[in-house]
Amino acid sequence: MNKSVLIKKVSSVDTQFELKEGAGSDAVHTTPIYAYAVCKLHTDSGIEGTGLAFTLGTGNILVCQAIDYLSKHIEGKEINDLMANFGSTYKVMTDDPNFRWLGPHKGIVHLALASVVNACFDLWAKSKGVPLWKLLIDLPPEHIVNTLDLSYLEDILTREEAISLLSKQATTKSERLNILQTGYPGYDTSIGWFNYSDDKVRANIKKAMDAGFTAMKLKVGSADSQRDIRRAELVRKTAGDKATIMLDANQQWHLPKAIEVCKALKDINPYWIEEPTHPDDVNAHVRLAKEIAPVKLALGEHVPNKIIFKNFIQSGCMSFNQVDAVRVGGISEFITISLMSKKFGIPVVPHVGDMGQIHQHLVLFNHIAMGHEALFLEHIPHLKSHFKYPVQIIDGYYKVPQHPGMSSDLKV
Amino acid sequence: MNKSVLIKKVSSVDTQFELKEGAGSDAVHTTPIYAYAVCKLHTDSGIEGTGLAFTLGTGNILVCQAIDYLSKHIEGKEINDLMANFGSTYKVMTDDPNFRWLGPHKGIVHLALASVVNACFDLWAKSKGVPLWKLLIDLPPEHIVNTLDLSYLEDILTREEAISLLSKQATTKSERLNILQTGYPGYDTSIGWFNYSDDKVRANIKKAMDAGFTAMKLKVGSADSQRDIRRAELVRKTAGDKATIMLDANQQWHLPKAIEVCKALKDINPYWIEEPTHPDDVNAHVRLAKEIAPVKLALGEHVPNKIIFKNFIQSGCMSFNQVDAVRVGGISEFITISLMSKKFGIPVVPHVGDMGQIHQHLVLFNHIAMGHEALFLEHIPHLKSHFKYPVQIIDGYYKVPQHPGMSSDLKV
Repeated sequence: MNKSVLIKKVSSVDTQFELKEGAGSDAVHTTPIYAYAVCKLHTDSGIEGTGLAFTLGTGNILVCQAIDYLSKHIEGKEINDLMANFGSTYKVMTDDPNFRWLGPHKGIVHLALASVVNACFDLWAKSKGVPLWKLLIDLPPEHIVNTLDLSYLEDILTREEAISLLSKQATTKSERLNILQTGYPGYDTSIGWFNYSDDKVRANIKKAMDAGFTAMKLKVGSADSQRDIRRAELVRKTAGDKATIMLDANQQWHLPKAIEVCKALKDINPYWIEEPTHPDDVNAHVRLAKEIAPVKLALGEHVPNKIIFKNFIQSGCMSFNQVDAVRVGGISEFITISLMSKKFGIPVVPHVGDMGQIHQHLVLFNHIAMGHEALFLEHIPHLKSHFKYPVQIIDGYYKVPQHPGMSSDLKV
Repeated sequence: MNKSVLIKKVSSVDTQFELKEGAGSDAVHTTPIYAYAVCKLHTDSGIEGTGLAFTLGTGNILVCQAIDYLSKHIEGKEINDLMANFGSTYKVMTDDPNFRWLGPHKGIVHLALASVVNACFDLWAKSKGVPLWKLLIDLPPEHIVNTLDLSYLEDILTREEAISLLSKQATTKSERLNILQTGYPGYDTSIGWFNYSDDKVRANIKKAMDAGFTAMKLKVGSADSQRDIRRAELVRKTAGDKATIMLDANQQWHLPKAIEVCKALKDINPYWIEEPTHPDDVNAHVRLAKEIAPVKLALGEHVPNKIIFKNFIQSGCMSFNQVDAVRVGGISEFITISLMSKKFGIPVVPHVGDMGQIHQHLVLFNHIAMGHEALFLEHIPHLKSHFKYPVQIIDGYYKVPQHPGMSSDLKV
């Protein structure tokens, strides 16, 4: 099926969700409200594209207004025409003269771009009646690269190199289709939000392990590091030596403090320590990584664009790449960053501002078409009831989604 | 005078200005509209604080809305109380839980912060009936540092170190007060906007030299590098061997192209080459600086915050620091970045999104109180008629402003 679908109108929706007590809390965001700046593509064909950018609270409306402004670049376009060479439209949107100064390529205008770009990918898959992962793994390498904007990456990833990387992986693609039988492994982020009591953390660990998870994450970054250490020990003790435990400081530490606390946290054998300090500070992460080796750093949740990702990737301090497609410039930039990451041998383990809805498609693509290791995908359940087709996790594995599109439609 | 002045209400104004044909054009912004997101502080005392953030065009209204949101942090405060420990209010504003995710510390929310912070400094100076430069050079080092937020800089600039740097400079301050007699040297940015014809460039150079300028800037970054080279040669030939000539590519080149064209531009002996490539790309600037030495790089116009400045400063590729107080988080962050720059021996030569109105105060402070070299300050005349107290340049020197505040009041 390759139906012609015209984007007649673009609209935005400011959608916000209160969370249950303590849920979503971290060292920096103590009482978060989860919010989506939704981009809707209304068409002549009875189907609708839905894009998401994830934010926290009040400022979400500004992202929606920026979506409204960007809509002029795609209104009136036929979706298959648009996606045939989407990289060039992407570049026009990122360099829009009224918006470029407000970034460039970061902050509110870039979050808005994410939502618009994601809506286009969703509509594209729906227009073909297939789930996004299926659309993406079947695309020829040239076509995938046509959806990307590789400008400013010429020093490390040319168009030719991107195509050749994908073409090489295509020869072994069939071996990796097995993942469609098993599903993609998940890990549980919600055992230890920052404000949860010890008892609640213990109970959540048991629940997670009963549900089949073997990997889980604890929020750290307390003003009192003894609290961090005590809670981390509690998780290790409760989950056992075999469990994979990640620690997440949500940017709370300055460099000297990060060195001190990360060294103290070594003993619980963390799989990674996440966002130890300011997400723009490449140098600080490089120094920290050296000081605390062999403990590894995961980061990328708040890295705004492919340029700063390039710097982190080149620097050697990023052991796990947590790029989030509802934060960087959408799926197009997510794929670009995944390609750079693959070239440098760094696994992509996305942060899931989308609660895994979209990323369950993207990690399948990354594994099957790009040859990334199928490590595991973050799972956050708090918004499950708001999605039309919520992710399904069975025995700790994401079930492969089968409905058309990228599972981003909300009930509201 | 130390009048009590209460901030009763904060408002924002979206102010936009059309420019004459070709003025303001560069390789990336071809038909700019200059815009200010203005923050107004209304008080109980018949005086008003005016802050500015500079943007280009439509998106300016989003910055104004973000100003409206931030206003809650300063409404109801007395200005001298507020400024006694302004660094802590600054930190609360940058880490506002509804806005932090939208940066952090970059893009629209950070531009809004700039305008709010600048309004506070303006009101503070007005409440004392002195020009901002005078207020700042008379402050004790501890008080200056109290207006700053040094978080995430602990690895290179502690509070104690900042105070000690200023205290040391205070002992030689009197020697540098001479600048108040001569005024601060200026350079002319408007001889060679991107869209200007060769004839217009020639005529502008003559005009600039007749007006006493010995330093001037040409926009480069053409798709056809031969045009850049021809125009640069034209400027050198017209201005003569003694003139100081800067070249500005406004982020247009990718790294391989930047290396190629900068090498070709060496022959005209540029004082610096400005913004050669993407402003987030520290690694690319480091490689470029090595490849084209002894040609030097100027950058910072689009570097969003102190963290990325820290990375550039540490990297060694930044020979001139062009931090702009109407783009980073206002005067507070400008001073913070100037301190780091001083420690690393890098001159501060601000980009003037404010047309030099505010920066004429800040470079006097940087020179007198911080010991920065009084190099020169960019001059852009296009909005002169819109300011209540426009900068005055005589024989190529900024005359020292004498009215209370920081010269940011607009006529509208």
